[in-house]
Amino acid sequence: MTPVELIRKKRNGGSLSKDELHAFITGFVNGTIPEYQMSAFLMAVYFNGMSVEERATFTEVMLHSGIVVDLSMIPGVKVDKHSTGGVGDKVSLILAPMVAACGVPVPMISGRGLGHTGGTLDKLESIPGFRTDLSIDEYKNVIAETGLVLIGQTEEVAPADKKMYALRDVTATVESIPLIAGSIMSKKLAEGIDALVLDVKTGNGAFMQRYDDSVKLAEALVSIGNSMGKKTIGFITDMNQPLGFNIGNWLEVVESVECLKGKNVPDLMEVTYVLGGTMLRLGKKADSINEGIERCKSAVSSGKAFNKFRELVKRQGGDVSYLDNPDSYPRAAHVKEVRSKKGGYISGFATMEIGLLAIELGAGRIKLDDVIDPKAGIILTKKLGDRVDKGELLATIHTDKENILNTASDKLASMIEIVDRPVTPPPIIVSYIDETGIRLWSF
Amino acid sequence: MTPVELIRKKRNGGSLSKDELHAFITGFVNGTIPEYQMSAFLMAVYFNGMSVEERATFTEVMLHSGIVVDLSMIPGVKVDKHSTGGVGDKVSLILAPMVAACGVPVPMISGRGLGHTGGTLDKLESIPGFRTDLSIDEYKNVIAETGLVLIGQTEEVAPADKKMYALRDVTATVESIPLIAGSIMSKKLAEGIDALVLDVKTGNGAFMQRYDDSVKLAEALVSIGNSMGKKTIGFITDMNQPLGFNIGNWLEVVESVECLKGKNVPDLMEVTYVLGGTMLRLGKKADSINEGIERCKSAVSSGKAFNKFRELVKRQGGDVSYLDNPDSYPRAAHVKEVRSKKGGYISGFATMEIGLLAIELGAGRIKLDDVIDPKAGIILTKKLGDRVDKGELLATIHTDKENILNTASDKLASMIEIVDRPVTPPPIIVSYIDETGIRLWSF
Repeated sequence: MTPVELIRKKRNGGSLSKDELHAFITGFVNGTIPEYQMSAFLMAVYFNGMSVEERATFTEVMLHSGIVVDLSMIPGVKVDKHSTGGVGDKVSLILAPMVAACGVPVPMISGRGLGHTGGTLDKLESIPGFRTDLSIDEYKNVIAETGLVLIGQTEEVAPADKKMYALRDVTATVESIPLIAGSIMSKKLAEGIDALVLDVKTGNGAFMQRYDDSVKLAEALVSIGNSMGKKTIGFITDMNQPLGFNIGNWLEVVESVECLKGKNVPDLMEVTYVLGGTMLRLGKKADSINEGIERCKSAVSSGKAFNKFRELVKRQGGDVSYLDNPDSYPRAAHVKEVRSKKGGYISGFATMEIGLLAIELGAGRIKLDDVIDPKAGIILTKKLGDRVDKGELLATIHTDKENILNTASDKLASMIEIVDRPVTPPPIIVSYIDETGIRLWSF
Repeated sequence: MTPVELIRKKRNGGSLSKDELHAFITGFVNGTIPEYQMSAFLMAVYFNGMSVEERATFTEVMLHSGIVVDLSMIPGVKVDKHSTGGVGDKVSLILAPMVAACGVPVPMISGRGLGHTGGTLDKLESIPGFRTDLSIDEYKNVIAETGLVLIGQTEEVAPADKKMYALRDVTATVESIPLIAGSIMSKKLAEGIDALVLDVKTGNGAFMQRYDDSVKLAEALVSIGNSMGKKTIGFITDMNQPLGFNIGNWLEVVESVECLKGKNVPDLMEVTYVLGGTMLRLGKKADSINEGIERCKSAVSSGKAFNKFRELVKRQGGDVSYLDNPDSYPRAAHVKEVRSKKGGYISGFATMEIGLLAIELGAGRIKLDDVIDPKAGIILTKKLGDRVDKGELLATIHTDKENILNTASDKLASMIEIVDRPVTPPPIIVSYIDETGIRLWSF
């Protein structure tokens, strides 16, 4: 079939065979299929979707367009976690060392902030000296020595996905579940993992705000992973409020270190322990998720988890003195309190808007070449359902930008909804998806 | 809005404002909107359609990308006809001189054969010396002198449509009613017409085989024409058999000349008279379509219609001796009879396949640079519903290609279906569409 016939087939609701889709995507990557044919095809996929087999082929071609790291020399089942991103989501910083401390190797290639969300790389780089730009050889050495590694995407990983994403970005074809799923999985499977745990966010601070869409994405990710021979389990977790209290790169490292040292931030640690328990189960270091959770809790209480994080930071060039004594880190020039104008109960956060406000304060890039201020961000003091008195502290704003202090604090106050009657907070972990289907989550 | 936001708006089922769509298409024509954005947009239009206002804007931008001929110096209401194309459709050759002979100026820019259909230009060029490549100035002079003109599309007419069509052709976005309608109307409105009659074919020899699709296309064309200030009326006519008896360029000129000289080929002349009567009504030379039909019939019986055709051919360089004495024209090297293998009634023609067979015989181009053999084609002797005896002549095949004579005659026999019981032929004119809506056609 010619390229135009393949586009027509997809446009008419058909499924391309493995060979057809392979040829079409490979042609695009090699430059023999022009961008205008790929963009028409992508728009047809937006409307007509992709079959299970098409999703696997799509992912496979992008995966094999670049390097696929071989970690077979590392003993054990290598397990990673991927989150679709949210506000205040610092789970990876706590989870990776905690799981590694329990004996499961964690190879993690992470991303930067995107849209209203922060990125694990930006958070780690707020630690002076921490290097995320390791070569593939260094990556292998670090995980061999420490049992975990946290780096950024290199040019060698899934270059086809980069080319595809750049085209999707300018042709309004980003918001397609099979395309999103293929893009995520092609990068994750290049890490050299044996199994994967997914944290698909849902709610007003997630990319997929509607629960149904989050489920569809999770199902697509789980099905691609399993069909490519990597045991994959997905969780749908709530993102109707920032996760934990701190938003902003260094502020999130501080909260992560506190949790690694034993502080219980309920929503943050519930997600972290459940994902961690699942990683231990997949990594064959626990017979059940619950047993894995208990082992993770011990790794935190014994100090092993924090020590593993400290070891990693040191190994990747970071200055560990700031982990031992976070107060020695520079503070933002301005810290402004936001106080409640009325008493009542916290009933809602405009989560995406809070994420965007943190970026405005300096915690992210508005333009591509902006420099992030690691000190900037927001520290909340309340969660959904909490009681608040009139005049009580709701949050502090941290920024060097004096000129936006007042408008930012007014904006933040308006992003926190307070009502008179008690409010029941949503469950943080909603559902659980593996190759057998979806079920509501319960311990 | 940025280009990607406009694509997203259409993708999400919205309608672009006049300014937005104007900017987007103009940007594409100028090269500031790249092809990959336009192809994604076109695929979104394939799925989500276009509003009435969008269709008009789309047409208008393509129309004004090139020259719009000014015929205001020609007195009277200038009226043209457009057919969506079929097999044996030689209506223009009879209609244009007939209507012009009744005093309505007919400026006609026609196309070449496309797919399984013939083209008016190819038919006219089978007359030795006939020139269809007139300049716009010559075009104006010919219609001023003779009251009609028949030329091909020049580079100066709707260049944006050419660029758009080339992209649609390779991105599987041809088959979209608003895009087809815009493409047709942008070229027709460039002719300098005041009103337009449409012949939208339906059936197994038409581009739109399903009646519903033909109606949608007719409605789109009528709505664009009227919204751009040109009174437009559409007919849906049957294309479940070739129109008339002759298929092939010179063979169709011969049948046209016979009809202009008074021969009654029922289906062909019914379409021709109804379209002609409507053109006279629109051209204010008749108070009703029926009165217009009567005037057209008089123009034929009086010889004025044939004389007008003769005048046009002469004016555009053609050798009129062949019109006066068609037998003097060279004949195909081989003329093979196709006889019926059984007695019965003609119940079906595989019309598209018959069109493609005529092309194979030499009547059209298989590759772009093929040279047409004007003598090649098929002459049928039967129409739907006709009684046929075993061994009776069904058709003759005309070609210089000796090597395909036998297979072609077998193929043609298999393309004509004969059943035992009497068959009622379909009505040739099915329905009638103007700005007030659609109704079944009756005199």
